Amino acid sequence: MKIDGTHYRTIWQDDAGVVQVIDQRWLPHELRIVPLKTRADFAVAIRDMWVRGAPLIGAAAAWGVAVAMQEDPSDAGLSETWQVLNETRPTAINLRWALDEMERVLRPLAPSERAAAAAKRASDICDEDVEINRNIGLHGLDIIKQIAAKKPGQTVNILTHCNAGWLATVDWGTATSPIYHAHEAGIPVHVFVDETRPRNQGAQLTAWELNHHGIPHSLIVDNAGGHLMQHGEVDMVIVGTDRTTARGDVCNKIGTYLKALAAKANGVPFYVALPSPTIDWRVDDGVKEIPIEERNQEEVTLVQGRGADGQIALVQISPDGTPARNPAFDVTPAELVTGLLTERGLCPADTTEMEKMFSDLKAAMLAD
Amino acid sequence: MKIDGTHYRTIWQDDAGVVQVIDQRWLPHELRIVPLKTRADFAVAIRDMWVRGAPLIGAAAAWGVAVAMQEDPSDAGLSETWQVLNETRPTAINLRWALDEMERVLRPLAPSERAAAAAKRASDICDEDVEINRNIGLHGLDIIKQIAAKKPGQTVNILTHCNAGWLATVDWGTATSPIYHAHEAGIPVHVFVDETRPRNQGAQLTAWELNHHGIPHSLIVDNAGGHLMQHGEVDMVIVGTDRTTARGDVCNKIGTYLKALAAKANGVPFYVALPSPTIDWRVDDGVKEIPIEERNQEEVTLVQGRGADGQIALVQISPDGTPARNPAFDVTPAELVTGLLTERGLCPADTTEMEKMFSDLKAAMLAD
Repeated sequence: MKIDGTHYRTIWQDDAGVVQVIDQRWLPHELRIVPLKTRADFAVAIRDMWVRGAPLIGAAAAWGVAVAMQEDPSDAGLSETWQVLNETRPTAINLRWALDEMERVLRPLAPSERAAAAAKRASDICDEDVEINRNIGLHGLDIIKQIAAKKPGQTVNILTHCNAGWLATVDWGTATSPIYHAHEAGIPVHVFVDETRPRNQGAQLTAWELNHHGIPHSLIVDNAGGHLMQHGEVDMVIVGTDRTTARGDVCNKIGTYLKALAAKANGVPFYVALPSPTIDWRVDDGVKEIPIEERNQEEVTLVQGRGADGQIALVQISPDGTPARNPAFDVTPAELVTGLLTERGLCPADTTEMEKMFSDLKAAMLAD
Repeated sequence: MKIDGTHYRTIWQDDAGVVQVIDQRWLPHELRIVPLKTRADFAVAIRDMWVRGAPLIGAAAAWGVAVAMQEDPSDAGLSETWQVLNETRPTAINLRWALDEMERVLRPLAPSERAAAAAKRASDICDEDVEINRNIGLHGLDIIKQIAAKKPGQTVNILTHCNAGWLATVDWGTATSPIYHAHEAGIPVHVFVDETRPRNQGAQLTAWELNHHGIPHSLIVDNAGGHLMQHGEVDMVIVGTDRTTARGDVCNKIGTYLKALAAKANGVPFYVALPSPTIDWRVDDGVKEIPIEERNQEEVTLVQGRGADGQIALVQISPDGTPARNPAFDVTPAELVTGLLTERGLCPADTTEMEKMFSDLKAAMLAD
């Protein structure tokens, strides 16, 4: 999307063929664009979260393999590259998927053909991600248009949690794609951005995206959404998801569940945007079956921001000696979800409807 | 309650007759106890929030009048004191109440009698607050005992939001009083402390209280409570309230409503602790009738904590140019409230039951 009027992706090849990325560690305070020239560069960028978000990690891994094939396209080099990059974020499903996909394409080829084929496939993976998110956005646009039609001339207010924005993908984002499309279509939209403690991805990334693209928005604390919904200030909620089950239970950033409860209680539609290939057909009851990662206590007790001197700093908000619990995700039961917004269209969060729309994906995953 | 083994109140007269308070601006990083020796000292301490929390503000105002009567006990001095102290926090109901109460007691007396009478009444106001909160705690203890009886030998897990602790009162606190009583009774308790953005009173005050009194607790982000309740990790919720209506709608710190929704959805009892004289019988439908204060954007965009250099610092978490919305309170509808925990006992959040238990208070308020 746009940064102050100029269109960007999160990862791209420049005119000289060098891969460039936004080093997201400095957002929202500084935009740093850095070249990744070696496999080692990519390994650091993925491991140290210069790039983050499942689709972007996959895209970066694909480009990492492409660059590695320029260095050493041998069978041993390909194997070593898979290994090195896979270790950067071992639990990232898209990382593994992208590495396997590159391996599948490159292994049968002669080493001399691999560099060119790898660059082609990496480029295509990026374009495919953009196309999926563009379509999620177009289907979401239909929903926003319906809401807008009911309040002509008035702003459509959308609440989102965490960052399922273009910074987490190659472009458009998932949850933000309908918002960007509505803005382009001239529908007046305003976004309530949950700050999303503990890591504040809403404040640091979503607010930055919207700010620089020029979309009206307000940052709110995670506590505020219920009150706003109670007072009719929110027309719809759109969030992303890290994992969605066969019956439509939605695992997403901690706090999503509380917003879904408030949406249900106040008749606010609650949508989850996702590429349909990410539905996990091997899991059904999300609350019972999905283990929730507990992360470092320091994410809760320390807050990062820009100090008065302009430097990035951490401040401790709690007393020494107070322990913290830090579950990173929660599960929103399907009955609280109005619909799953995918590149194929809107699907109810319901076993039967999901099987109908995605039978091929289910069959493919369960055959693996 | 205790600070590292020694019992404290938030405001007290030392052996030399000087009023001492905890200057709460430095918590949780530093315990500073300061004397308030003049009316001007009290005005600054209340206005600049060295002391905060409705009951404590009332107690401090009463002591402020007492000290002022040592300086100038004349009729004019009494009038001026009411004026000066009332302007320190003009919207604080307990402040106004305490000033009116001191006026009521002192005005009929000869100036020469006022200093002694004022000190007596200020001291009594403090003791009355302690007694109310002690009784809230004893009634709450009964509930905790019932929960403990159902899980013998196991810890009772209690979630609280914001600070309705002893630091907001003279002693015991409201929502924390049952917890301190249970701890004293030898019942194993553990408290999930919501950090309570934007001002982090949970992280800064409640965690500090529990930490120094020696009660097991875990700090959590405001997003985490729903997930914990969904997984059976919370046995009960206890919160305080800024304003409770005649039918039991509860106005409290922003985010309380989201926790009440999660409690209801997961069968977790949700209690509100309050001195019964604070029920506002002139208001019925809290969501419709109670105007919600919107506070400074900077409370959302800037976070205060202790920097690496040990100094208190503010860091900005969001991009320059991103606006924030900052509603400070929300209203939890009565149907989400399991019960009101008062010094007279537990009362259902229901018009009829409340009128039955507090008919005298209702009549007195409506007669005003």
